Amino acid sequence: MPVLVMKFGGTSVATLDRIRRAAKRVGVEVAKGYDVIVIVSAMSGKTNELVGWVAETSPLFDAREYDAVVSSGENVTAGLMALTLQEMDVPARSWQGWQVPVKTTSAHSAARIEDIPPDNIRAKFDEGMKVAIVAGFQGVSPEGRITTLGRGGSDTTAVAFAAAFDAERCDIYTDVDGVYTTDPRVSAKARKLDRIAFEEMLELASLGAKVLQTRSVELAMRYKVKLRVLSSFEEQSDDAGTLVCDEEEIMESNVVAGVAFSRDEAKMTLVSVADRPGIAARIFTALSEGGVNVDMIVQNIAEEGRTDMTWSCPTDQVARAQKAVEDAKSDGIINYHEVIADTDVAKVSVVGIGMRSHTGVAAKMFDVLSAEGINIKVITTSEIKISVLIDRKYMELAVQALHDAFELEKAA
Amino acid sequence: MPVLVMKFGGTSVATLDRIRRAAKRVGVEVAKGYDVIVIVSAMSGKTNELVGWVAETSPLFDAREYDAVVSSGENVTAGLMALTLQEMDVPARSWQGWQVPVKTTSAHSAARIEDIPPDNIRAKFDEGMKVAIVAGFQGVSPEGRITTLGRGGSDTTAVAFAAAFDAERCDIYTDVDGVYTTDPRVSAKARKLDRIAFEEMLELASLGAKVLQTRSVELAMRYKVKLRVLSSFEEQSDDAGTLVCDEEEIMESNVVAGVAFSRDEAKMTLVSVADRPGIAARIFTALSEGGVNVDMIVQNIAEEGRTDMTWSCPTDQVARAQKAVEDAKSDGIINYHEVIADTDVAKVSVVGIGMRSHTGVAAKMFDVLSAEGINIKVITTSEIKISVLIDRKYMELAVQALHDAFELEKAA
Repeated sequence: MPVLVMKFGGTSVATLDRIRRAAKRVGVEVAKGYDVIVIVSAMSGKTNELVGWVAETSPLFDAREYDAVVSSGENVTAGLMALTLQEMDVPARSWQGWQVPVKTTSAHSAARIEDIPPDNIRAKFDEGMKVAIVAGFQGVSPEGRITTLGRGGSDTTAVAFAAAFDAERCDIYTDVDGVYTTDPRVSAKARKLDRIAFEEMLELASLGAKVLQTRSVELAMRYKVKLRVLSSFEEQSDDAGTLVCDEEEIMESNVVAGVAFSRDEAKMTLVSVADRPGIAARIFTALSEGGVNVDMIVQNIAEEGRTDMTWSCPTDQVARAQKAVEDAKSDGIINYHEVIADTDVAKVSVVGIGMRSHTGVAAKMFDVLSAEGINIKVITTSEIKISVLIDRKYMELAVQALHDAFELEKAA
Repeated sequence: MPVLVMKFGGTSVATLDRIRRAAKRVGVEVAKGYDVIVIVSAMSGKTNELVGWVAETSPLFDAREYDAVVSSGENVTAGLMALTLQEMDVPARSWQGWQVPVKTTSAHSAARIEDIPPDNIRAKFDEGMKVAIVAGFQGVSPEGRITTLGRGGSDTTAVAFAAAFDAERCDIYTDVDGVYTTDPRVSAKARKLDRIAFEEMLELASLGAKVLQTRSVELAMRYKVKLRVLSSFEEQSDDAGTLVCDEEEIMESNVVAGVAFSRDEAKMTLVSVADRPGIAARIFTALSEGGVNVDMIVQNIAEEGRTDMTWSCPTDQVARAQKAVEDAKSDGIINYHEVIADTDVAKVSVVGIGMRSHTGVAAKMFDVLSAEGINIKVITTSEIKISVLIDRKYMELAVQALHDAFELEKAA
């Protein structure tokens, strides 16, 4: 039997009624002759509640305990989905990550999937089971402890299962009907894309367009998984949603495919760092070892042998970044005057594979922001994207202005 | 190091503040030199929410999926407790049932613990860990699926760990400060007992005094575990709460130790059963195979070769009891006219080891109920208890009248 992977996000399983609705859609695919692997998230709001409890209990939490706590929401949905399908007379059972097992690294709260032996689930398909429901977002470390894959990790679980089972397609059901040029809640002119290239989706995902987890797109690109994003709240045709695919499968595209943004960014500055060779390496090694995901980096011009070093990182890593540099200072590894955290910033980015062949995109972006009186704090660029850090209060304005300037409301 | 087991029930871990309070009490025992095993329940209300979801999704649920769902609440509390202790600089980590592993039978939703290999946890104690927090109520079957031990199963988890680790004592922290002659919410004259015999506690537990799960008391009796019930909301002296112990350790006791009751009883009747030899065996085999825990049984006198068979069982097993007898009827195993379920009944019992040497307790009980105009529907007795099934609306009245009549407000 061909295998189909269907992933349902938190809003798609937020209530028992929605679980039933999702189960009906699964039933439709089973009727078409698929063996279906369903990956479920926690009911919407549940994971945030658990994360909140952990953060309140222990700001610098032991990530192993964090994982044990926050992985529990998916187990609930998986069991309820199995029961719902059984009530519809569809043979189904649930699996938790460790039961499959979904083998991951020991990098707790940001683990990577290393292997998914398909034997246990395949054996059940062979016995006549039609649907395997797997709790997303979680796995098990070589030490036998529960790991999680980072926020949005259920997408990665889904793509990894699609790869492991050589699935015909991986459908990601969510609360939006596809990938947009930007978030429609921020710009009313946002337009749904029928197709988007893996590379573009990768940048959009990593830039905070919360449709898909970055790693899920990386994995899909590497293993050539046909990935579709579609709404669980609308009746579906076979070409609904947005197909994430190879660049070659897209005929025409705009220079800029979309405008992404992220509110969860903080800007941190080490003031008056002794400017010695290798100092940047020391600072960012300390941050990396402290579990901080540094994104943008800026170094001021040194004066009198001292410089300021600025970086951005997720807001919820500010405390551990602070601890990492303070520890490095007291160990004599680095030397600075003070550390400042600015959590009132946002990141806005334009993304498009067309940038490879078109010049002037950056200049145009800076012009547009300048015309709106928006000050740029940090800039980073890659081959197909340009990102800036700005004051958070200007974020919506910046997104709308860029969407207009690059005429994203029109298809290519 | 001597080992102490401390179990915290749902109300004792209902909020992060209460978890902190419980953790402080654990810290006190660590400071005394104990290696501590903490067994936690789910935050109060969580398991009921999960059970509700399962019941709504699937009235005749697959117990394997039920277990996967309802076991998740304990995992959350275990992780949060570990983080709280770590914040207090007490070396601690959490274990889920399958990680220990807590090996159980495959009787899902009513599994029995078969073995708890202490090696994994002991190794961590040897490395300097001071507290092992274990998610209560759950285990893992020989097939590698999650099992649960039945409501209140965390008590059994606690006693089983106390036995497996040869613990000095097993302290059950709950929302009451000990075992009472009856529920103080029903009779204002209820009195706390300093000591109670295992046998009495066993009857009280199985009769619905929700202080301890029945099996936990059985286990404690078999393995001679010193079991103490005490409040997590009061400062504790060393002799706080109620000690559940051997009969010989109790100097003087009343004839009746307590009055217990249960609202979650249903009375079911098979009307006009063909009265053939072996018919009772067939009916109760069918119910047992259907997973129904039958408590009381009454058979009417047969007339013209037909009889009525009445039994009581937990209210939430009525649906499966109905299914079991209907299936047996359509298979031609039994023959009856109709099946009636009365869920408006309650069970009231008097318990005391003194009954062994005192006569007239039953007569007195029936007199008291009769004087209050309460009709008795079913009676069962054992060596140390007498139970009656009555209309639920008379339950409180019956408990108060019996408590007065046997003068339970006075110590022996």
